Amino acid sequence: MASYGSTFQGKRVLITGGLGFIGSTLARRLVDAGAEVALVDSLIPEYGGNLFNLAGIEDRVRVNIADVRDQYSMNYLVQGQDYLFNLAGQTSHIDSMREPYTDLEINCRAQLSILEACRRYNPGIKVVFASTRQIYGTPDYLPVDEKHLLHPTDVNGVNKMAGEWYHIVYNNVYGIRACALRLTNTIGPRMRVKDARQTFLGWWIRQVIEGKDIQVFGDGTQLRDFNDVDDAVEAFLLAAAHEGANGKVFNLGSAEVINLKDLAALLVEIHEKGTFRIVPFPADRKAIDIGHYYGDYTAIRQALGWTPGVPLRETLRRTLAYYTQHAVHYWEPSE
Amino acid sequence: MASYGSTFQGKRVLITGGLGFIGSTLARRLVDAGAEVALVDSLIPEYGGNLFNLAGIEDRVRVNIADVRDQYSMNYLVQGQDYLFNLAGQTSHIDSMREPYTDLEINCRAQLSILEACRRYNPGIKVVFASTRQIYGTPDYLPVDEKHLLHPTDVNGVNKMAGEWYHIVYNNVYGIRACALRLTNTIGPRMRVKDARQTFLGWWIRQVIEGKDIQVFGDGTQLRDFNDVDDAVEAFLLAAAHEGANGKVFNLGSAEVINLKDLAALLVEIHEKGTFRIVPFPADRKAIDIGHYYGDYTAIRQALGWTPGVPLRETLRRTLAYYTQHAVHYWEPSE
Repeated sequence: MASYGSTFQGKRVLITGGLGFIGSTLARRLVDAGAEVALVDSLIPEYGGNLFNLAGIEDRVRVNIADVRDQYSMNYLVQGQDYLFNLAGQTSHIDSMREPYTDLEINCRAQLSILEACRRYNPGIKVVFASTRQIYGTPDYLPVDEKHLLHPTDVNGVNKMAGEWYHIVYNNVYGIRACALRLTNTIGPRMRVKDARQTFLGWWIRQVIEGKDIQVFGDGTQLRDFNDVDDAVEAFLLAAAHEGANGKVFNLGSAEVINLKDLAALLVEIHEKGTFRIVPFPADRKAIDIGHYYGDYTAIRQALGWTPGVPLRETLRRTLAYYTQHAVHYWEPSE
Repeated sequence: MASYGSTFQGKRVLITGGLGFIGSTLARRLVDAGAEVALVDSLIPEYGGNLFNLAGIEDRVRVNIADVRDQYSMNYLVQGQDYLFNLAGQTSHIDSMREPYTDLEINCRAQLSILEACRRYNPGIKVVFASTRQIYGTPDYLPVDEKHLLHPTDVNGVNKMAGEWYHIVYNNVYGIRACALRLTNTIGPRMRVKDARQTFLGWWIRQVIEGKDIQVFGDGTQLRDFNDVDDAVEAFLLAAAHEGANGKVFNLGSAEVINLKDLAALLVEIHEKGTFRIVPFPADRKAIDIGHYYGDYTAIRQALGWTPGVPLRETLRRTLAYYTQHAVHYWEPSE
């Protein structure tokens, strides 16, 4: 695997969505790599931010509570930074259909204003944007590579597509070095498990820990790929460190592909208790479901040397262990 | 060619951007086809709206001055309409880089709110959206068909891409019948010629009529295709009339492809006076230039029977004739 060596030693790094799942995991890695890390997060209850995600590194990062829609705060916060990991976003597909303007403000407009802030106040910054495989919509072929057409199935997908492309345009037109990673389902400790807003798997993990029945929508044969959060974070660091990533978009992905029924069974097996059952799709979810998906990550492997290293079973095991121990910090038992 | 017969007889039709170039030409065709036509336009001076575009049909259409960003007005105006031709947009690539938020408000947010208005107040409406070949960016291959990746080169392209996809998502998720036409350079009487904001060719036409030197940026070998506005309007009508268009995006295009130097020469030849010269690209235009472009319009030909019928020479001839006669309504001689 390619590496980033001492790239981040003494460097100033800003992470939007820094109290969230991937943002906080990235922060952990960066403080260990010697970076001065500042985290921006709005702690909107429905989103992924959680102060407990910083447990153990509270004194090694600077936390700035702000919303990425707040243009003036962002104008200030980008100044003096060497790297921006731009992870703040509205992630719920269902919420994007119910409140499309909120999704637009966060996933489109705020992205544009963050890039404008960089252009005006810190054009030398390097930006890595967290995009999503959701923008491909229902795949035309599998595995999905970066040559696959973008045809999103929901408002969230449309807005993330635009947010991604603002980054590429600002790279190409203004030379604000930027690239985007199209994440697939990312899992691990500190993911949102309170509900299914970030990923259905978070909800499943909570259900199995609470001894409730996991509901698998559809017929359970839908294929998916998953990345351990440590592997995803590695991709962000490599993309930040390598100039060859500038102006590019890269899929993440996994050599392991699994259907949802087998995934539920694996979760129950690892946890050594729990049940699941197959239920029909609710209508609002069916309308935006993408069927089978798994991605081709050859491009980032070739360009940056990234490959996912953590087996799915191991990710599920450590995620279940984390939430078994820390449940109290992630949901109210009465909910 | 397929036809739309008496589809629009007695039907209620709303056109956003209705005082603009294509919108007003569409209005002319629709009143002749027996439709009740309402036009929405904000008459922003930098955009394409011009009341003179209605000369001769003033008494046969209803004009409502409003901005598509005005959500409440749009909520009202879509009600009771059978068809919506959604043509209002910010079209200037350069302006989109200078004022990216304005472009976002018009080309993204207003599109979303128009679709929300349809969903809540008139879900039976049929919508045809004016998209643009600009969203393809610099072509990977020629001619560009609809399977070509979208990789816009400027903020306008990103926002138009999002605006297009909101339409497709609302078609697929909510059954608001909608489709999009990716227009190439459209020319003809009533185009904006005051400046190059709508198309460079409008500016050239003004220059040649005013006896000024046409400036061809680059080396003049960039290939382009052009549609006569009557052909473009025909595509809008066919797309509205045919259910097979729902949820689809279609390129327009032309069998005639010409480079910019030859186009300038043709313009001078038809006008029987004028001059042109090749000049280097200004930096801000070079950064967002797309190189060669011409589109493949096989999909719309096969699905709707559309083919462009007006030869380029004839379009240029009648456009020059129109502006020679009506210049006073389109620009101030002193400008």
